[in-house]
Amino acid sequence: MPPMQIAERCGRVRGRFEQAEALLISDLTNVRWLTGFTGSNGWVILTPHEVVLVTDGRYDNQAVAELADAGVEARVVVGLSSGAIFDSIAAEVAPYASIGFESAHVSYAEFQRYQGLFGASLVPVGGAVEAERRRKDAGEVARMAEACRIADAALADVVGGSSMVGRTEASVRNELEIRMRELGASGPSYDTIVATGPTNAARPHHRPTDTVIEPGHTVIIDVGALYDGYHSDMTRTFFVGEPTPQQMDLYEVVLSAQRAGVAAVDAGISTSELDAVCRDAITAAGFGEWFSHGTGHGVGLLIHEDPFINRTGDLKLQVGDVVTVEPGVYREGFGGIRVEDLVVVTDSGCRVLTASPKDSPCPPSPPTN
Amino acid sequence: MPPMQIAERCGRVRGRFEQAEALLISDLTNVRWLTGFTGSNGWVILTPHEVVLVTDGRYDNQAVAELADAGVEARVVVGLSSGAIFDSIAAEVAPYASIGFESAHVSYAEFQRYQGLFGASLVPVGGAVEAERRRKDAGEVARMAEACRIADAALADVVGGSSMVGRTEASVRNELEIRMRELGASGPSYDTIVATGPTNAARPHHRPTDTVIEPGHTVIIDVGALYDGYHSDMTRTFFVGEPTPQQMDLYEVVLSAQRAGVAAVDAGISTSELDAVCRDAITAAGFGEWFSHGTGHGVGLLIHEDPFINRTGDLKLQVGDVVTVEPGVYREGFGGIRVEDLVVVTDSGCRVLTASPKDSPCPPSPPTN
Repeated sequence: MPPMQIAERCGRVRGRFEQAEALLISDLTNVRWLTGFTGSNGWVILTPHEVVLVTDGRYDNQAVAELADAGVEARVVVGLSSGAIFDSIAAEVAPYASIGFESAHVSYAEFQRYQGLFGASLVPVGGAVEAERRRKDAGEVARMAEACRIADAALADVVGGSSMVGRTEASVRNELEIRMRELGASGPSYDTIVATGPTNAARPHHRPTDTVIEPGHTVIIDVGALYDGYHSDMTRTFFVGEPTPQQMDLYEVVLSAQRAGVAAVDAGISTSELDAVCRDAITAAGFGEWFSHGTGHGVGLLIHEDPFINRTGDLKLQVGDVVTVEPGVYREGFGGIRVEDLVVVTDSGCRVLTASPKDSPCPPSPPTN
Repeated sequence: MPPMQIAERCGRVRGRFEQAEALLISDLTNVRWLTGFTGSNGWVILTPHEVVLVTDGRYDNQAVAELADAGVEARVVVGLSSGAIFDSIAAEVAPYASIGFESAHVSYAEFQRYQGLFGASLVPVGGAVEAERRRKDAGEVARMAEACRIADAALADVVGGSSMVGRTEASVRNELEIRMRELGASGPSYDTIVATGPTNAARPHHRPTDTVIEPGHTVIIDVGALYDGYHSDMTRTFFVGEPTPQQMDLYEVVLSAQRAGVAAVDAGISTSELDAVCRDAITAAGFGEWFSHGTGHGVGLLIHEDPFINRTGDLKLQVGDVVTVEPGVYREGFGGIRVEDLVVVTDSGCRVLTASPKDSPCPPSPPTN
């Protein structure tokens, strides 16, 4: 697995941030991305000349080891209680007249605590780290590719070559989650979706139940793996038994829209333009009202992160973005169809990280081993 | 399953809240507790005379149905975009000169959005709903008791009567999570902990790995079920093979401390006093430094909620609190031991909801069916 370029990240964020002398980062995903620290309690203070990580006594050794592994030059400060931690943060920021804080992640109550503790003026900062976090490096892409490989293999092993008739949504979900762990995932990337038939598959975010998969159903399986902190995300739709002409027609509509979306992914396209590529294709076929969600979203240390790809999105894709392309159609009484791949934006379009077959709405080939 | 008394809850919160004319509730757990609405996007506005739920187009029918099921008299307002939702909230609060908001749950960025949209003065309110949410009604306790029953049965089925030697932490975790679902849980209450041996069991929040369980190990299993939104929480410690004298001594120390803690649970005791009951017992035996976390926490719609039971806690237990009592000792090279029960505070002490055997550090009896 190629290494991640963690050591350079604090510098990248500093270059983006000029509104205050120092920046206090409290969001744990941002703390992890900046430093490699994976504990559940930590703050990073980014000053013009230094990086300071403040955590509690459980994470003393772990923090020092993880920062060293990542090649991050930072001072680790340990507070043995919440009060001591905030006193340490206050001491670290005392030299500065203005402190930026992450306004999307700091609650108003925490902001009041900062006001009481810090002498500096407090500057709300939105998305400084997230903006840099979008650009995945080779190590991050390799981890997400591995997560995709695990989910591809689990899907092939669990539904490949065998009929799903008589199995329940929940049992297929359970087998997928177990198989991904056996294949090296630290867990599922999110709550696996298995949604079958005219009612359940019509709900884009259905939670698996004891509903039995029956001939005539469309079955949506939305499954991803978590690998070294990074997520994958993929959806395939299967037809059980002989598909009806309407099912086949709609599968072709969704698959064509999804292929058009993947083909349109390129640095510079806006997220609303990309959404329109998929949406216009489905609308032209007469099913625009059945496509009831956005076309996709960024994926990384979070399963949902910038850039969000929907009608109102105004970001432009850039090299290093990892995003889903996942149009779908849903209608109570019919069920639903969704096809989703995970792609990384390159300087010549994109590379698709998910590899499960999608040409036809049938279970993938049985595992070869 | 006895019904929950959802309809009375908005009135209970109104009685606790006098700082502003109306209260905007944005925390989804609080929204669910107040109204029965389980969607992933919703706000409750509590005015002196009315309850209003604002949500998006995905949840229109669901919201009306869930509020009716709960007997909650409320008006449901649907906004078809984030902008429309906030315009609706602004229109609803327009008649009031002051609006309370949940300062622990609203980010500073959201607060700024409120400032731009609402004409009223904004009043930060801390924990008004959480304070009432502590007092579980009979329907809530019944759901948590059912979650405990499921976890008890899963633990007996998965490790009862059989040796754990040769199994991995991850495989035991997988079997527990599957079995809980088969027994009626909607999922695990939290990431199940299986921690074995001198290194892994020494970490209170270890994540299961492929480490193989071997003779001589202590194995900590911390497992709970989720049932109709309510959590359970329980820990048992098992010894593999013939225990050493030190292992047996420490088990007795922890078990005695835990029994003393459960015996001390009563309305009126402060959370720091209860913590001291367990901590003093372990300290008296010479192992105070090995007890590196708090004694317990509240459980309900969240796995961790008020009241937190630790050295600095200053709340008093009250009838209807559901809390864990979970002292433990941990030391690298030795491993760890933790015993945890979930109890509900009654007017005569407490009732223990978890029932797995704990008299001796051995696997429970095999299932009888």
